[in-house]
Amino acid sequence: MNRKLLPFTRELAVSMAEKYSTPFYIYDEKSIRRKAQSFRAAFEWVPGGFRNFFAVKALPNPHILRLLRDEGMGADCSSLPELLLAEKAGLPGEEIMFTSNDTPAPEFVRAKSMGAIINLDDLSHIDFLEKNAGLPGLLCMRYNPGPLKGGNAIIGKPEEAKYGFTREQILEGYTLARKKGVMRFGLHTMVASNELNPDYFIETAVILFELAVEIYRETGIKLEFVNLGGGVGIPYKPESVPVDLLYVSRGIREAYERIITKNSLDPLRIFMENGRCVTGPYGFLVARVIHEKNIYKRYLGLDACMANLMRPGMYGAYHHITVLGREDQPLSETYDVTGSLCENNDKFAVDRKLPKTGIGDFVAIHDCGAHGHAMGFNYNGKLRCAEFLLKEDGSVKMIRRAETPEDYFATLVD
Amino acid sequence: MNRKLLPFTRELAVSMAEKYSTPFYIYDEKSIRRKAQSFRAAFEWVPGGFRNFFAVKALPNPHILRLLRDEGMGADCSSLPELLLAEKAGLPGEEIMFTSNDTPAPEFVRAKSMGAIINLDDLSHIDFLEKNAGLPGLLCMRYNPGPLKGGNAIIGKPEEAKYGFTREQILEGYTLARKKGVMRFGLHTMVASNELNPDYFIETAVILFELAVEIYRETGIKLEFVNLGGGVGIPYKPESVPVDLLYVSRGIREAYERIITKNSLDPLRIFMENGRCVTGPYGFLVARVIHEKNIYKRYLGLDACMANLMRPGMYGAYHHITVLGREDQPLSETYDVTGSLCENNDKFAVDRKLPKTGIGDFVAIHDCGAHGHAMGFNYNGKLRCAEFLLKEDGSVKMIRRAETPEDYFATLVD
Repeated sequence: MNRKLLPFTRELAVSMAEKYSTPFYIYDEKSIRRKAQSFRAAFEWVPGGFRNFFAVKALPNPHILRLLRDEGMGADCSSLPELLLAEKAGLPGEEIMFTSNDTPAPEFVRAKSMGAIINLDDLSHIDFLEKNAGLPGLLCMRYNPGPLKGGNAIIGKPEEAKYGFTREQILEGYTLARKKGVMRFGLHTMVASNELNPDYFIETAVILFELAVEIYRETGIKLEFVNLGGGVGIPYKPESVPVDLLYVSRGIREAYERIITKNSLDPLRIFMENGRCVTGPYGFLVARVIHEKNIYKRYLGLDACMANLMRPGMYGAYHHITVLGREDQPLSETYDVTGSLCENNDKFAVDRKLPKTGIGDFVAIHDCGAHGHAMGFNYNGKLRCAEFLLKEDGSVKMIRRAETPEDYFATLVD
Repeated sequence: MNRKLLPFTRELAVSMAEKYSTPFYIYDEKSIRRKAQSFRAAFEWVPGGFRNFFAVKALPNPHILRLLRDEGMGADCSSLPELLLAEKAGLPGEEIMFTSNDTPAPEFVRAKSMGAIINLDDLSHIDFLEKNAGLPGLLCMRYNPGPLKGGNAIIGKPEEAKYGFTREQILEGYTLARKKGVMRFGLHTMVASNELNPDYFIETAVILFELAVEIYRETGIKLEFVNLGGGVGIPYKPESVPVDLLYVSRGIREAYERIITKNSLDPLRIFMENGRCVTGPYGFLVARVIHEKNIYKRYLGLDACMANLMRPGMYGAYHHITVLGREDQPLSETYDVTGSLCENNDKFAVDRKLPKTGIGDFVAIHDCGAHGHAMGFNYNGKLRCAEFLLKEDGSVKMIRRAETPEDYFATLVD
């Protein structure tokens, strides 16, 4: 079994625990920047320019959005607070893509006034947007290929998904929007999540490139960009293989030349909206073992719980765990690693092989840099923890403080 | 199909939407009080007194805790913020039961200083509690029957559950605690959740009564109370049958006389810690239809989402939906009822038969009075909504305001 490496030492975790408290999140700036750079390098061939709009929901912190912007990424937002976060991070309009569904009118108003690229989820939203906010000069539409394209386990079958326009509707949509004065157009789809098969993204590009040709033939509209969506997965399990971005890029380039260039539809910009693979592997939840328990099974009880990380309890998701300072010891023991929520599924791991571990040990839960802190709740009165950025010079900076009981009580009315 | 009745009218919902906004939660005070009274009436035979400690995590609002206290209920807490909520509601020490697991030391300290009844989850916690907070005069221990008792679908098999002492450990625990000076003792178990089979609770009582006899024989300790746990389910589906508390009470009484009275162990108080059945059926999430969508399926898009109610998206749980003002119309249409989160599982209902419904209609989602607002998160930048109490005089009182973007940003650090 491959060991997963950490960008920090036990000593750092101990000193942070003493200065602040556990649990906490820590994100590795250097690795996040490198990952963003690898996207830029892989897709620098794209005529007109490539951009990944980081899915803000993965790690909604302006410090992260700012450093990603340094590396050329935009922000993919889907709610008013996410738009405001992108604004706090200083992103200008067209570096923000607003991909929402079942959208409340005030959110369209804000996205329009910020100059964000609006990606419509439904044919009826053209009129809804026009009536509530006016139509922008640039408009994107989300395509749902339905039974034409299989989804994956996380997102389900596209024809069961609530998102997007059908093929007939999207042609109708472009025609209608142009008639209403829209001049620039984009096309979007997103039909999987956490996918590790690289061919999947090439196939998605082929579908959108072919649809771009069809749109041009049917309506005369030359698209300015296609957004292939996100969904590039990460290897949560040590034996999983990460997506090779260069392989994906080569496949997409071949399809681009064969379909887009050949039909004189270039330059067609290519966008993506990955979140998970950009920050996921570079974030860690650090917690302390506060109890050992031996009943019908053996348990290590952490001072973290589902409020800090939902994925294992909610989806049964695997997250690798390293016991700090015991990296070289044999995985001789079997534990359930639990949190303290009054829910039996509040377990970070079930029947996990670990070194012999005891009270006072620190653990790092891997691959928590996306959909980690962001999915936390306050069930059972549990409080969400602090976030730190491990900077390139080795120092740490707090980028979100821990919640207090006062935060939890803030909305109570006497 | 039985129709589920509402304690309020469409007119009230419309006027509240105009004055405040949608979505919002509304709880029916009269029904909650009646339910609490029905517990008291069913168990008034219990020598020494019955008490249900309301599971605070179901509906963690001091206004609710206060009205339940009026009706004789205590509070079952499992975290520091929940203890503070019970304190805010004015509950005195022994009306609070602190049933936690994997407990941090400061929470034991607080529970002890408040005089709450501490229910230990593990044998090792006797020393942990003594060392960190000192032992109280009254101590409860949580029993995990392991393979002796089947659990149910929600809580799983007891031998797989992280909670409680084994049989051997609990006998050792009472002996150890008495040696350390503890004088008064309770016994607790909780091995199911949302259970509709009334015999289940009688069987649980039998197990604890028999264990009380065994504890007396082995250690000479006469327990002061047994806590049967919670888990009384509610009929989420219209065809489900609620638990008959009088039937449960009769069965428990018969067992009490046969086991406890016969062995001269009375008075033995009986406690429970139900949350769901106390408030669940009497709370509603009211939302407005803001979009209709027709692609491969038909969708009604609400202005509520998973942030307001997790159970359908997280567990696939059924929640009945009434379209306000259309109660008498035929269920002629089939819809998926969605929220706006960027998660395809953000659906309140899939393939639900409803009357013909359109934009501007109000819906009430039933059985949201427990584990509803409390489980909300802020994923995707979504904000949690307000809570209102529908008072017995027909007026409404806001008991929690809606979150604002400022609340969402409150823990960010520059």
